[in-house]
Amino acid sequence: MRVVVPFDATSPKSRLGSLLDATERDAFARAMLDDVCSAVETAGGDPVVLASAPIDNDRPVVVDDQPLTDAVNAALDRAFTAGERLSPGGAGEPVDELAVVMADLALATPAALERLFDADGEVVLVPGLGGGTNAFVSRTPDFRVDYHDGSIRDHRANAAAVTDSVTELDSFRLSTDVDDPADVVEVLLHGEGRAATWLREAGFTVTASGGRVEAQRVKQP
Amino acid sequence: MRVVVPFDATSPKSRLGSLLDATERDAFARAMLDDVCSAVETAGGDPVVLASAPIDNDRPVVVDDQPLTDAVNAALDRAFTAGERLSPGGAGEPVDELAVVMADLALATPAALERLFDADGEVVLVPGLGGGTNAFVSRTPDFRVDYHDGSIRDHRANAAAVTDSVTELDSFRLSTDVDDPADVVEVLLHGEGRAATWLREAGFTVTASGGRVEAQRVKQP
Repeated sequence: MRVVVPFDATSPKSRLGSLLDATERDAFARAMLDDVCSAVETAGGDPVVLASAPIDNDRPVVVDDQPLTDAVNAALDRAFTAGERLSPGGAGEPVDELAVVMADLALATPAALERLFDADGEVVLVPGLGGGTNAFVSRTPDFRVDYHDGSIRDHRANAAAVTDSVTELDSFRLSTDVDDPADVVEVLLHGEGRAATWLREAGFTVTASGGRVEAQRVKQP
Repeated sequence: MRVVVPFDATSPKSRLGSLLDATERDAFARAMLDDVCSAVETAGGDPVVLASAPIDNDRPVVVDDQPLTDAVNAALDRAFTAGERLSPGGAGEPVDELAVVMADLALATPAALERLFDADGEVVLVPGLGGGTNAFVSRTPDFRVDYHDGSIRDHRANAAAVTDSVTELDSFRLSTDVDDPADVVEVLLHGEGRAATWLREAGFTVTASGGRVEAQRVKQP
């Protein structure tokens, strides 16, 4: 399955500003992107990075500086339309299904992504913590996105407007996006890739303070 | 499958004190407990509430005022040991598998619990947000729990010490426990039972403030 991985190449992970400086946020975001793309490949998917600015990456990169919603909807248009190109340099074949998986799903595993790719439904939605939409599969050319606060509710409605076959995938690993400082500890607890290694090498460890554990930076590299 | 549902009947959901007063926390916690027990039953499970103090409930209730870890380990002992009683009034048969599912999993659905009950593994762990352990199935009499901050890591080690067959279930609905104020919005977004209804009737709604959505109380009942 072709898998679009949107990536903010301009100011990634700005909500982690209390934990990481801009250079670190960029490096951490790229580690997560690489983890997601690797997991997609191992799950049998064909990742294309949809970046807001040019980036160096081993995978195909499509640059689109439009806001996320417009960029993803344009990618959906291209993918489902004959003769348009999804990736640079080649006239891609139109697809009959497409996945979009966010680049900050640092807990994503091949097994979780296989479940997504194999899930029944014309539209398969994966909610994110706090009402976002972390991933989806569309098997209809008519589904369009609208990313904003609480987008999962609108995406449920958008999907229901174009098909009777809307499902949701129940996956902690795909519903946990790494946006807020409290999310970082999930990478330390459950991550298995470059992002978890990056955090450990940057001095983060798991600390308990009564209640849920947190990620705390105990040393600078 | 027999399913132990531990419930803090003494001061439930104290970390929601900024949102709900003590009477409300008690009512909300009981709504979640009922949702969990109903979902367990629909999934084919046989729930037993393990309460820290006597409560009125339609299901069998075992009262144990020990700390959670000791109470659950005692329940494991009773369940796997012939001649001991799991529920009051009857000499229960010893089991060869037992599930423990926390009472604050307000997003739990029968489908998610069926996946848990059917999952392969001598010990099947379900992590909670922030390093907790929201549920597990044990098919060995030797696994014991130690609930505390970040317990999932110790439970992985405890399980690995008694069996080579340790798995984890990947479920957003079971990994989302309702402990902190930020969790309440997940019930409004995804809950389908009494707890979601209770919140709406108590005046809670979903609000956006840039980033993840939140639950805000817009009126008092």
